[in-house]
Amino acid sequence: MDIKAYVVHEKNGPYQLETVQLDDPKEGEVLVRNVASGICHTDEFGRSQGVPIALPLVLGHEGAGVVEKVGPGVTEFAPGDHVGFSYAFCGHCDPCHEHEPYYCDNFNAINFGGTAPDGTTRLHQDGQDVSMFFGQSSFATYSVVNAQSVVKADPEIDLAMVAPVGCGIQTGAGAVLNVAHATEKDTVAVYGCGAVGFSAIMAARVAGCKKIIAVGRNDAKLALAAELGATDVVNSKKTDPVEAVRHISDGGATYGVETTGVGPCINQAIQACKYHGTLLALGASGVIDNFNFGYEVMMQMRTVKGSCEGESDIKTFIPQLLDLYKRGEFPIDKIITVYPFAEIDRALQETHDGKAIKAVLRM
Amino acid sequence: MDIKAYVVHEKNGPYQLETVQLDDPKEGEVLVRNVASGICHTDEFGRSQGVPIALPLVLGHEGAGVVEKVGPGVTEFAPGDHVGFSYAFCGHCDPCHEHEPYYCDNFNAINFGGTAPDGTTRLHQDGQDVSMFFGQSSFATYSVVNAQSVVKADPEIDLAMVAPVGCGIQTGAGAVLNVAHATEKDTVAVYGCGAVGFSAIMAARVAGCKKIIAVGRNDAKLALAAELGATDVVNSKKTDPVEAVRHISDGGATYGVETTGVGPCINQAIQACKYHGTLLALGASGVIDNFNFGYEVMMQMRTVKGSCEGESDIKTFIPQLLDLYKRGEFPIDKIITVYPFAEIDRALQETHDGKAIKAVLRM
Repeated sequence: MDIKAYVVHEKNGPYQLETVQLDDPKEGEVLVRNVASGICHTDEFGRSQGVPIALPLVLGHEGAGVVEKVGPGVTEFAPGDHVGFSYAFCGHCDPCHEHEPYYCDNFNAINFGGTAPDGTTRLHQDGQDVSMFFGQSSFATYSVVNAQSVVKADPEIDLAMVAPVGCGIQTGAGAVLNVAHATEKDTVAVYGCGAVGFSAIMAARVAGCKKIIAVGRNDAKLALAAELGATDVVNSKKTDPVEAVRHISDGGATYGVETTGVGPCINQAIQACKYHGTLLALGASGVIDNFNFGYEVMMQMRTVKGSCEGESDIKTFIPQLLDLYKRGEFPIDKIITVYPFAEIDRALQETHDGKAIKAVLRM
Repeated sequence: MDIKAYVVHEKNGPYQLETVQLDDPKEGEVLVRNVASGICHTDEFGRSQGVPIALPLVLGHEGAGVVEKVGPGVTEFAPGDHVGFSYAFCGHCDPCHEHEPYYCDNFNAINFGGTAPDGTTRLHQDGQDVSMFFGQSSFATYSVVNAQSVVKADPEIDLAMVAPVGCGIQTGAGAVLNVAHATEKDTVAVYGCGAVGFSAIMAARVAGCKKIIAVGRNDAKLALAAELGATDVVNSKKTDPVEAVRHISDGGATYGVETTGVGPCINQAIQACKYHGTLLALGASGVIDNFNFGYEVMMQMRTVKGSCEGESDIKTFIPQLLDLYKRGEFPIDKIITVYPFAEIDRALQETHDGKAIKAVLRM
């Protein structure tokens, strides 16, 4: 079928809204009329070919919509169901069999490989293959997605709120709830005031952490961090964040959540962890020069752990977060700005300018 | 009482065998006639003032001997008991209360602070305080040690075998058994052919790991590694260790155990871990230049964790290792060379020359 999608034809090239052809859902797949899609830094990473993906390419990996049709063998969904999408995984490696699909051996190969999990694409243009992103390519009016990456959503919840939960929001929230398993005994320091960082802060409040320290560079965003649950805020342009976090947390954070991916900030975030504390690194890029591994990691018995997608079982965790949102305990609406589908460039510009935290396109 | 001890009077100064005065055991302490003490890199770290410790100083932190006398309140030990010593801890912080004394908030302050856990020393010379090391200062004919750091040893086992278990051997073995909880599903790559690395290899064999890869630079030591349990050996002077480990382990080690503390080697050890694998860093020092944290840690969902003392509950783990030794399943005798107490300089020289792996002094 013909659909409309934002196609990227060259590295860092513009998002061009064009007609592309979408295949029918194959076995185990679902055709969804997209209603919303979050925009995430990882889309820009893809557009810049941070990992090489064959062009042309349709980005977007935080989609949500209404099921139109299901492929053979799909019993979990029916037309009319409200759904959100999450990351893709192969479903047949050891981690997938052990219900840890976020550790899928083929995670990067599939999500950044330009195809559905079976290694072929569902998108074409004038007979030419068009690459997919995260097995969904949600910057489009329709997507065909493997049912294992699709989650039912409460139809009372606006799909523009559902969309970003499938990546950015679960990444921050899952780091705190699924990876750290933070409790009221923990002090969590969160570095970076974007959607991932704010989601970590909201999750730390849900977990009842005794101190929740937001570290950023913008007073307005730090004020929002406090509204979302931060007990303390540190403007790292004005204050040494290592000293400040250590002081507030009486010796260091039990958990740090680093979302900036900026080398020197990662280093500070490690240093501000308690003896045998843990830094969860959620931001890509990040080169550290002259990193004193022996002192900062080994002798302090610290753990630094890279984490993606909140290490979440999407079929249970996404509904859990949406339920918390509905009950007012996880106010993601405060970090979401909705834009018409046609205005992707404005959404990106306002994100870049710091006016929007999590931009969501509505089709 | 007057005892003989190796006193260090200046930074990097010689070990001088001199008479010093040892206090009587205080409440909760044990007086032990030392029979053996391992020599460890950390003693040399102390002698070089890698962490500043007040001089003069008596080093040694892998002691073992026979109880001579117990202080008030000690019921666990009686004169004549064979015992080994391990690291010191405060006993009253949160981690100590939670039976995780290896995470003691005061671990570094006590073990490198020159005193017993109560903040005072038991050693003196001509009326001047002499600093302790790891609360034991076992390069001496007698030690007074807090009973919480003392472990009973089977009297059928030579105390020269018991001594190094309290630090170097439990550090390597505990990394595999207590921290990684490695199983037959795991591939463990061990970097460095010293006592810590060999102990990790022996422990990985006890755990039945499917691949145990020894990475070193000396063919004779790699041959010993194979004898101790390595299924594969890699000479990193001849072969790229990252490629070799990935090849042998079908994509990367689930656990790496880094014992060299050399920056570039740490970096390679991280790179040779599987996607979402874990590197346990056991070697101090180690500065990494231009460390691509975002790619090597975050995007690979890897964990790098500093670990000390095998994160062991010494009262159960040390007897467990000694029992494995007695049954022939943990052949520490193959890595130990015993020297007379008077020959500390030869022991150090032969360790430096690679002739001895774990030198142990016998008093």
